[in-house]
This record gives sequence, structure tokens and C-alpha cells, in this order.
Amino acid sequence: MNIYRYEENPLITPEDVKPFHEGFEVIGAFNAGIAKYKDEILMLLRVAERPRSEQPNIVKAPIYNPATQAVDLVEFRTDDVRYDFSDPRVIRDVTQSAGFAYLTSLSYIRIARSKDGRRFTIDDKPFVYPSNPLEAFGVEDPRVTQIGDTYYIYFSVVSPVGIGESMVSTQDFVKVTHHGMIFCPDNKDVLIFPEKINGKYYALHRPTVKSIGSPEIWIAESDNLLHWGNHKHLLGLREGMWDGGRIGGGAVPFRTDKGWLELYHGATKEHRYCMGAVLLDLNDPSNVLARSGKPILEPDAGYEKNGFFGDVVFSCGALVEGDVVKIYYGVADTSMACAELSLQEIMDGLI
Amino acid sequence: MNIYRYEENPLITPEDVKPFHEGFEVIGAFNAGIAKYKDEILMLLRVAERPRSEQPNIVKAPIYNPATQAVDLVEFRTDDVRYDFSDPRVIRDVTQSAGFAYLTSLSYIRIARSKDGRRFTIDDKPFVYPSNPLEAFGVEDPRVTQIGDTYYIYFSVVSPVGIGESMVSTQDFVKVTHHGMIFCPDNKDVLIFPEKINGKYYALHRPTVKSIGSPEIWIAESDNLLHWGNHKHLLGLREGMWDGGRIGGGAVPFRTDKGWLELYHGATKEHRYCMGAVLLDLNDPSNVLARSGKPILEPDAGYEKNGFFGDVVFSCGALVEGDVVKIYYGVADTSMACAELSLQEIMDGLI
Repeated sequence: MNIYRYEENPLITPEDVKPFHEGFEVIGAFNAGIAKYKDEILMLLRVAERPRSEQPNIVKAPIYNPATQAVDLVEFRTDDVRYDFSDPRVIRDVTQSAGFAYLTSLSYIRIARSKDGRRFTIDDKPFVYPSNPLEAFGVEDPRVTQIGDTYYIYFSVVSPVGIGESMVSTQDFVKVTHHGMIFCPDNKDVLIFPEKINGKYYALHRPTVKSIGSPEIWIAESDNLLHWGNHKHLLGLREGMWDGGRIGGGAVPFRTDKGWLELYHGATKEHRYCMGAVLLDLNDPSNVLARSGKPILEPDAGYEKNGFFGDVVFSCGALVEGDVVKIYYGVADTSMACAELSLQEIMDGLI
Repeated sequence: MNIYRYEENPLITPEDVKPFHEGFEVIGAFNAGIAKYKDEILMLLRVAERPRSEQPNIVKAPIYNPATQAVDLVEFRTDDVRYDFSDPRVIRDVTQSAGFAYLTSLSYIRIARSKDGRRFTIDDKPFVYPSNPLEAFGVEDPRVTQIGDTYYIYFSVVSPVGIGESMVSTQDFVKVTHHGMIFCPDNKDVLIFPEKINGKYYALHRPTVKSIGSPEIWIAESDNLLHWGNHKHLLGLREGMWDGGRIGGGAVPFRTDKGWLELYHGATKEHRYCMGAVLLDLNDPSNVLARSGKPILEPDAGYEKNGFFGDVVFSCGALVEGDVVKIYYGVADTSMACAELSLQEIMDGLI
């Protein structure tokens, strides 16, 4: 696989982003949804901000408070044995089986704009910011599906009651309409197809299951993009391969003459995140035709291997121009990068 | 609370049900959905059948095979240290964090019919039986919502990829139309309201979350009963109370002059399952008005305290006639019972 990583990579780093919250630092500007709007390429950045702490033995958890519309801080001492601080992203309650109790940063969505797709200017203010109790711990990992003149933007919302997927829409990236939670907890990595197929909308989604099963990709259908059903299991883990630990949708699926191509992320059990592709039937995307034997993109460059959470390439959006697939992707849960790949080479690697 | 338990209780026991599978025994006939059809009361029983084992050191897991339309058996030796057999309902893989790897019984839905609501005759054959890969470990805990002439029957479906909720419909309890999975894993305890409210259908559901959160009740809306969205968190656990461990919807919500009344189950952290009530706004059921301070029904009779999984009362359906609420309920994951309560007393116990 020939991979052309942009010379400008990383395109955006946390240092490029001015904190929105006083007393906070930006620790991530990553996992951006991608849109073409007028003559610009937009990155809908996930910006993660962390409260500055002068005392190394204090960890602060930021929580959006819908009543006051401000961010509250909960402080923890790192020697508090009731909590586990070993993962820098989260605070775990050692008495609970749940994955985490608090996040150490608050994420929201901010737009970066570019004419050439390489040099971006970042908006001063958030574009989508937490606004209700289901978003108290932040909004993460946006994707953008354009249907006609409308851009549907959907993202993980995190709160004490779960992680689900909510959606907004816009026609101008200024005025935003909220549509509520479209996939209930535990779910993330939703990808809505850009057109109806045989009269139905389709979406990929990634339930995080507790009773039985693994973090794998499902598909659902809808008449109106708001309500989803006829859920089917689509794609499973492959033991011992690059996608043997967890998988989830990545970029918005795009049409090729062979089928719908979805660029998805796969991680090993050791949390090394790569990107690969899966080809779905043009007339029935619940039918899997082929998938990448090897990753199409894997952590290699320094900015991909090292960061807040290293060894991660994670795409939420790509642009396709003829044979050129421009994969925009978050690196190491820290920054944004872009690489160009050949569509034909991606197709040739499907097994 | 005055509770009139029927003299005929338990109304149905496993001994009353002839096994459908050769070489199996019926270990449960419980958690029935309730419907009134013509001049009869129907219990849509969850029947659980277990492969007989002549050797005490062998446990068999039954799995429906959609390709052969037969049930395969997987055998485990009880001294196999890779598995945990301590819960009689499931087989756990000790290397996995998931709740279970296999079930020890296969459940399906079978109808019992009665003119008086006390003495039931059980159909010879299953009514809803596993028919696809998402139902490989069985179908469980049906509920029935009648809308016009159509009965919507929805139930948990269990397979190696997760537990979700699927739906069928019928007008005569003979011809059945399948509608696929309406709530994706991990989810169960769905209850569809019997009429539209301000132009939308509503359903309660109970995600089982892994990342963060607790087993609590959510509400969703729909235009067509098949696709669901606008998910909202509705009702949480109450620490230290009868519903402090887990909660989930029970009977189909019914209209009162004060609001929609939902009879839900709550369990302590020690897995003692009781029934209580929650009152929801007539015009906006996502608005909680009040809930039972104490259970309205709790395990007390011998058939409720002792059985396959004891100390459980678990209703999937009730009939309301004036002030009389006839709660049909599964007992000890084994049998069916019925108790009559006063609607006014239930309302008086709401706080």
C-alpha cells in the first residue's frame, strides 16, 4: 500500500487551539468529522480540554452543568484508593464494574476551515457544545453525512447514565437544529450512508455490549434519519488479526462500482488502532462482500505512535476524488493528520 | 397494600408443560406476556427447556442452528477450569469480562389460554420459536401491546453477538409477521405504549450499559413502531431501596386519570426482584410524576421465594378492570402466578 502522508502533518495539534475554558489546557484536537462546504474543507474537530492542575496529586474531572450552563470541577486526590487513575483519559471507581466513573477532559466540537485541505484556520468558538444532561461529560468523535443541502452531524455523547449517539443538522454551519439521541447507550461510531438504498436510510453503529458479545459493527435502517430499527450484526472481530480486539465504523461510507466502501477502525487487544476497509453490497449494505486482509493505514509516523494515547490512527471522515482517497484521521488521541491512498490499492487488498 | 394471590397459584408450573424438544426437560414456564383475545385471556409463556443430562459432571448448552433449523448441543465438563458454572442459568468463560458465554436452557414462546384467567390450557407447539442467528440462544420475556386489531409481541433475543429486542405482530395468534430487531444490544424489558401520544408512539427500554451507567429505564419515540429514536433517560436506581440494584419495565403501561402507570421491576444488589409502579405524564411520558416508595408486590409465597432462581416476582403483563389490577407474574424464574391489587392503593403508595 502506497501511503502519502502530507508534509504538513500533523495538520492541527493541541498547541494550535486556544482553550475555550479559562484555566483549561487543550490536550486534544483530533477525530474530526469532514465536510465540504462551499469552496472549503471543514474539519469538525473534537477538541478536548483539561482543567489545569498546579498540584500533581490532584486530578480534576470537568462536568457540564445544564442548570448553570457552566462547567463544574470535581477534584480527586491521586492517593484516594477508591479510584484508579492509571488511564490518563478516565477516572475509574474501583468498586464498580463499569468502564469509568469520570473523564479527565471535556470534549466539544470546533470547526477548522481550509481551502487546500492542508492548512486550516480554527474557529474561536465551539460549534457544538454540551447542552443537556446526556452530554454532561462532553461530545466526541463527530461524523458528517451530507444529504442534499443538509449536513447531518452525529457524535458520541457521554454522561453518568451512558454513552450514546446524538445528532444535529445544519445547512450553513452556523444555525444548528438538535435531533436528540438517535442511538441509545452503550453505542458509538455511528455512520449514516449518504443516500437512501431501496427506499431506506442505513447506518452503521457499534454497540458496546456487556452481557455477551464483543465491540463489533451493526447496521440499522430508518425512514427519517431520527428513528432506527431492523438492527443486524454486520461485521465481527478477527481473532489474532489487526482487528481482533475491537472494531467500529470510521469514515462515512462511499459508493464505488463494486459496492459501498467503509473505512473502519480495528484495534488489537493491546489497543493498537489501525484503519482498514470493508465492502458492502450496493443494493443491500447488510451484506458483507470483502474486507481488508491487512490494515490500509497503521501507526508508523512519530505523531501517530506518540501522544496522549499512542499507537492510534482513527478516521472519522475521508474525501474521495477519482482514485485518490484522502483519509483525515486523528493520531494518538492528540492531533489531526491526512494521508492519500489509492482507491484501487484499497480494493485490491480486500479478501 | 392488600394483595389477593389466586388460590390456584402457581397457575402454571414447568410440570404442566410437555417438552417440545426430545431429550429435554421444561425447567421454566414464566415471565408471560398477557393478551385478551376474543373471549380468552392468553399467557404468552416463556418456556425454558434444558437438555437432560445423565451425567452430573456434564453441562449441555443448547444452541439453535438456523442452517439446519435444529438445536445443537455443546457439552462442558463441570471440572473444566476455563468455565464457571456457579449460576445455574449460564455458563461463563472465566477469561472473558462478558456476563456469560452460553445459556444452559433454550427459551421460546408458547401460548396458554383461559376463559377465567385462572385455569389455563397450554398449546402443544411453540408460538414464537428461534428462527435466525440473533435468536440462537433463545427468545425470552415477551410483552404484548394491542393497538387496534393488531397485537405487537416483542421479546429479548439472545445470541453470541448480544441481547436485543425483536418484534413480531399478529391479528389472530396464528399468522405471525416478523419485524426484526427493534432495539439493538444490550437491551431488554421493552414496553410499547398502547396508543400514540401527541402523534408519536413511545416505548420504555432498559439498556445494559458497560462503559458507564447502571441498568435503568429509558424512553424512546417512533412513528411506525419499527424504528426508534429520541432516547431519553427516564428512571434511575434508588440507592439502598428495593430498586437500588437494577430496574426495568414490567407490564404494558396503562392510562389512568392521573397519568400513565407503569408496573416495573426493581431488584436489590442481592438480586431480590420486586414489583413497583411509576406514574408518567399523560401528555409527555418522558416526564416522571411519582413512583412507589415501597414495592407493591414482593417475594413472599413459597413459589415466589423458591425455584430455579428464587426470590423473584417479575411481571410482563397485567389486566386492569376498574380498580382491580390483575398482575400476572413470573415467580422464581420457574412458574406463573397472578395477584389482584387495588389501583387506588397503588396510586396512594406513590411518592
